[in-house]
Amino acid sequence: MKALVIHPPHDLRLEEVESESIGLAQLRVRVIAGGICGSDLHYYHHGGFGTVRVKEPMILGHEVAGTVVDVGGAVTGIAPGARIAISPSRPCGHCRYCLEGRQNHCLNMRFFGSAMPTPHIHGAFRQEIVIDAAQAHLVADSITHSEAAMAEPLSVALHAICQAGSILGRRVLVTGCGPIGALIVMAARRAGAVEIVATDISPTALAAALAAGADRILNTAEDPTALSAYGCDKGTFDVLFEASGSEKALRGALEALRPGAVIVQIGMSGDMTLPINIITAKELEMRGSFRFHEEFAHAVSFLNKRLIDVRPLITASFPFTRFNEAFAMASDRTQAMKVQLSFE
Amino acid sequence: MKALVIHPPHDLRLEEVESESIGLAQLRVRVIAGGICGSDLHYYHHGGFGTVRVKEPMILGHEVAGTVVDVGGAVTGIAPGARIAISPSRPCGHCRYCLEGRQNHCLNMRFFGSAMPTPHIHGAFRQEIVIDAAQAHLVADSITHSEAAMAEPLSVALHAICQAGSILGRRVLVTGCGPIGALIVMAARRAGAVEIVATDISPTALAAALAAGADRILNTAEDPTALSAYGCDKGTFDVLFEASGSEKALRGALEALRPGAVIVQIGMSGDMTLPINIITAKELEMRGSFRFHEEFAHAVSFLNKRLIDVRPLITASFPFTRFNEAFAMASDRTQAMKVQLSFE
Amino acid sequence: MKALVIHPPHDLRLEEVESESIGLAQLRVRVIAGGICGSDLHYYHHGGFGTVRVKEPMILGHEVAGTVVDVGGAVTGIAPGARIAISPSRPCGHCRYCLEGRQNHCLNMRFFGSAMPTPHIHGAFRQEIVIDAAQAHLVADSITHSEAAMAEPLSVALHAICQAGSILGRRVLVTGCGPIGALIVMAARRAGAVEIVATDISPTALAAALAAGADRILNTAEDPTALSAYGCDKGTFDVLFEASGSEKALRGALEALRPGAVIVQIGMSGDMTLPINIITAKELEMRGSFRFHEEFAHAVSFLNKRLIDVRPLITASFPFTRFNEAFAMASDRTQAMKVQLSFE
Amino acid sequence: MKALVIHPPHDLRLEEVESESIGLAQLRVRVIAGGICGSDLHYYHHGGFGTVRVKEPMILGHEVAGTVVDVGGAVTGIAPGARIAISPSRPCGHCRYCLEGRQNHCLNMRFFGSAMPTPHIHGAFRQEIVIDAAQAHLVADSITHSEAAMAEPLSVALHAICQAGSILGRRVLVTGCGPIGALIVMAARRAGAVEIVATDISPTALAAALAAGADRILNTAEDPTALSAYGCDKGTFDVLFEASGSEKALRGALEALRPGAVIVQIGMSGDMTLPINIITAKELEMRGSFRFHEEFAHAVSFLNKRLIDVRPLITASFPFTRFNEAFAMASDRTQAMKVQLSFE
Repeated sequence: MKALVIHPPHDLRLEEVESESIGLAQLRVRVIAGGICGSDLHYYHHGGFGTVRVKEPMILGHEVAGTVVDVGGAVTGIAPGARIAISPSRPCGHCRYCLEGRQNHCLNMRFFGSAMPTPHIHGAFRQEIVIDAAQAHLVADSITHSEAAMAEPLSVALHAICQAGSILGRRVLVTGCGPIGALIVMAARRAGAVEIVATDISPTALAAALAAGADRILNTAEDPTALSAYGCDKGTFDVLFEASGSEKALRGALEALRPGAVIVQIGMSGDMTLPINIITAKELEMRGSFRFHEEFAHAVSFLNKRLIDVRPLITASFPFTRFNEAFAMASDRTQAMKVQLSFE
Repeated sequence: MKALVIHPPHDLRLEEVESESIGLAQLRVRVIAGGICGSDLHYYHHGGFGTVRVKEPMILGHEVAGTVVDVGGAVTGIAPGARIAISPSRPCGHCRYCLEGRQNHCLNMRFFGSAMPTPHIHGAFRQEIVIDAAQAHLVADSITHSEAAMAEPLSVALHAICQAGSILGRRVLVTGCGPIGALIVMAARRAGAVEIVATDISPTALAAALAAGADRILNTAEDPTALSAYGCDKGTFDVLFEASGSEKALRGALEALRPGAVIVQIGMSGDMTLPINIITAKELEMRGSFRFHEEFAHAVSFLNKRLIDVRPLITASFPFTRFNEAFAMASDRTQAMKVQLSFE
Repeated sequence: MKALVIHPPHDLRLEEVESESIGLAQLRVRVIAGGICGSDLHYYHHGGFGTVRVKEPMILGHEVAGTVVDVGGAVTGIAPGARIAISPSRPCGHCRYCLEGRQNHCLNMRFFGSAMPTPHIHGAFRQEIVIDAAQAHLVADSITHSEAAMAEPLSVALHAICQAGSILGRRVLVTGCGPIGALIVMAARRAGAVEIVATDISPTALAAALAAGADRILNTAEDPTALSAYGCDKGTFDVLFEASGSEKALRGALEALRPGAVIVQIGMSGDMTLPINIITAKELEMRGSFRFHEEFAHAVSFLNKRLIDVRPLITASFPFTRFNEAFAMASDRTQAMKVQLSFE
Repeated sequence: MKALVIHPPHDLRLEEVESESIGLAQLRVRVIAGGICGSDLHYYHHGGFGTVRVKEPMILGHEVAGTVVDVGGAVTGIAPGARIAISPSRPCGHCRYCLEGRQNHCLNMRFFGSAMPTPHIHGAFRQEIVIDAAQAHLVADSITHSEAAMAEPLSVALHAICQAGSILGRRVLVTGCGPIGALIVMAARRAGAVEIVATDISPTALAAALAAGADRILNTAEDPTALSAYGCDKGTFDVLFEASGSEKALRGALEALRPGAVIVQIGMSGDMTLPINIITAKELEMRGSFRFHEEFAHAVSFLNKRLIDVRPLITASFPFTRFNEAFAMASDRTQAMKVQLSFE
């Protein structure tokens, strides 16, 4: 079996790896589609992000869907041939955060394709993978494996929405319209936002946000003051989803937020310099958003019923053997939203 | 000008009433469409509900839309010819509840077509009406006055959703699929419910719930145990919207609710006998929902963008002179969801 | 070793029971003090409550404190001689509610002294008991075992407060001033209630509520309209803690609650007939409160620091051999708040 | 009548000002005690803070208590001789934030002693002042005017606690133990925090925090790693009240916060550089806290019942004619917590 292994930056290799044995509560799955995520790109280009560094060869990938080929003896309700989206999240189920329902903060998390712990946790860009039955979510016949592989980034977007509390009837600003930002636009619409404005500096990204359902898009590179009209009477937006990781984007949005507005920070970033007096005087609430837990099942339900239709965001799919082309396109914001690999 | 005035029960009359003068911050509006609400029917058939009784002739109606014909001197942003939905809610803006943002509990509320205070507050089933500018909400050219007149019951539904907190990803049960119940189905879908099951005893109402977007409908007259499959592992649904006002419906739903589930009670009712030990042991939360405030603007936004499409729920429209036919049809659950009057 | 075993109603016996063996993650504890709870009294007088019936002999008791005598091999941080309060709650740690942090709704709960499951779970009115290390909470040298045995009912009270959300600055009504009601008064004061009014029909209970810190006590037997002064402008209290289980008490309090008020229902009861139109029109929120989870640790902390001083509520302590006297006094509301057994 | 007027920095003058006339809904009050606040010190030393600058002579002071001497014709429930704490907050009651219950964000706020709007709003360091009746809160005979003058900073502390949601049973960290930080310690205890740790770099401030009820104080100047023991298993504290306005204090506390912890930022500050990746990965929530609204009445209630006893925090009181000494002492963190002026 072949797998896609990252070595030092830019040294991504298709390597032969051994099949794993399958436990009683596990499934063997033929991987069919896998999306390239921003963290995959960080590993590929920079060997990691922040303090997370690739210290040993690691199989990439955590946005995958496939078809079950073998089923452990203790598994019920799933059979060979089942088409599934695979959650990359494997919390321990025993630590204090798991027992509080905060599995995304599990002390012993084994998330697919993550260099956070050492030894690293291998990912799912491989022809076949053994997973826990709990990671498998059945997908409807009417959707493709390619759509199913979007369940993971959609889960990230849904978790971000949940961090904001109810947004029904709320006015929403999204800064940063990469794949996560565009999925947040979709999820915010689904969750009942009454108005959605999206900003970015890339026309491609903005076009995707529009396709995703934004009411209005603003190019803050072309017009740095585009948001100023939203600043009257202490501000307009109830919620900001900050998906760019850019200090400039966040600072530029503050005056457009009304008192008590919630900022959900999804974009990973290092240090940012922020005007605390504005946060204090307007009583803004800035909340981090990290991964997901129960939202994976919700994402699959929304996809299955096409209550969220992610197809406009899938730019291209490459056979996995052409991974270098795929990673190149995924890295090019003028061209790509989500780029996937096909393992068929 | 003609208006539709309720006298003793069943004595509804089309009467000549005088035009009102228009204040500086007011608008004169030609009424075009008006929906018949359950409370109108209660006034018509029973002379009121609970302790609220019609003690003097009162113009009915509070679900109306029209076109502005005259504008007070202090009004900005609205001109003759503007097509508007009219909020029937007129809170005082000065009492302690208004100053807490709980305008639906205003101590001095003057809600159109309400016999709660005496003298009663006249309603809007009339050819022309003077309103406060704050009651007017502009509607898009692409929607009809008939749809715009649905803004009021949709506001009631949206407020009920708000009472539940965020329902994104939640499993929802709706008991009672009259116009409000069906609008709750639509609003719950809009707010991101992942599964919506609706129950009623009328096939017509259930068909409407299905058209409104319910995933599944259950006729509890035909199968009183229809919900029992949802009772395993202490229950399934995260939220119940109780829109029937029926003790039987509410009691029958309790076992299908998971621990910590929220019950939003919209259906008005007298006494109900409830099993407190179940509410306590499962830590259910039962919340009343009464009218709306900020949700009216949200309702109009959703209608304007057709993010909620209420057209399947409008059964028929009658010229206002044929009000008796209209009230008869509106009273017949085997035929009607929303019946409207046309004042054109 | 002796234990207190309930047979048919009123047939409580002191019986010889065998010592249990101790597991790796367990402790053997010499029981020193144990409080008689309302559910113990229900088992004693009526053989159960609601659908929960004693179907086989069962050791009573779940409010106990003791001293560790033996420690399993895998236990750290606790040694023989340690003085502890014992949580009677043993959730499974694996079911879906445990993994949501809702351990009080565990599908496999083994709560001490409970006839809910069959076979029943034996209680802790015994000279020695083997517990899971997770059930042990260290108590300060400065407090007595008798106080420590109040940790369990205090946990119930704290959980009820948590169900209400923040009550800092809130006006609170408590109906029913038995041991739980009086502890709720203490806990509500600790949690920052700005005004606490308590009602009951027993002068003894009301005196206890006053000692517990209530600002005002009202005897609703002597003056059934005692709360009417609180009904002006749609009501006064932000939160009602209903600890009587009496329909009359609950109905009588509704007009004194302001719109949006929260009712926390702690008192177990069968059916109650409630005026749904008031709940709906005032948008009251009625929430069940059942047992506790993380609050047990908080209760012990509050006791250890005497931030809550429960001593005024401990009416008497009897040697366990005089259990019939103890149960008689505990059953007499004119005399007793909390009655304890001493196993020393 | 004399008043204390700030001119350019350090030029504080006792000047003769004219008496104001009293309106129908107003009171004339003899000022008796007034506390010097951090913002008074900023005006005095630096001519303002951030973008708020003193542009014209302004009477300082907004933490005052006094005795009513004259009552407007429309005022009920208050008589000459009444002893009152005076809220400095005068929201308009008409803007959109007032009608949402967010009066602290009023678009037309006239807060005593504030240079935010121009013309500035004069303060209350004067022998006599005319106030709106709504600003007056009756104080108990058992507390002094000096204590009553603490109602304002206590309101700031209580509002900060409210921003955190319920803290009953929570573990709390307070960084910065000036008067506001110390009052937060008191308020957090009152609101049911189960553990309170306070940090500062001043032994005087830390001693005050201890007197205020902190369980533990840590001098982060002496031991910069004092909090590291709280960092295990991803962190300990549920809530951080950041009352220092110091980037170093905030950054140093982040690792001690558990995932999902809330940071309430009260300390005013300019820019801070923050590690966004930590905020994101731990899903921290940073909320600004600005002034107060309903908390003023709560503060007076707590003072009246001595449920919060602020006396340990009142360092000294000077006759108002010795204002320079008072401001000097108030500016010296090695000596002072709250310094007051006496206008008697």
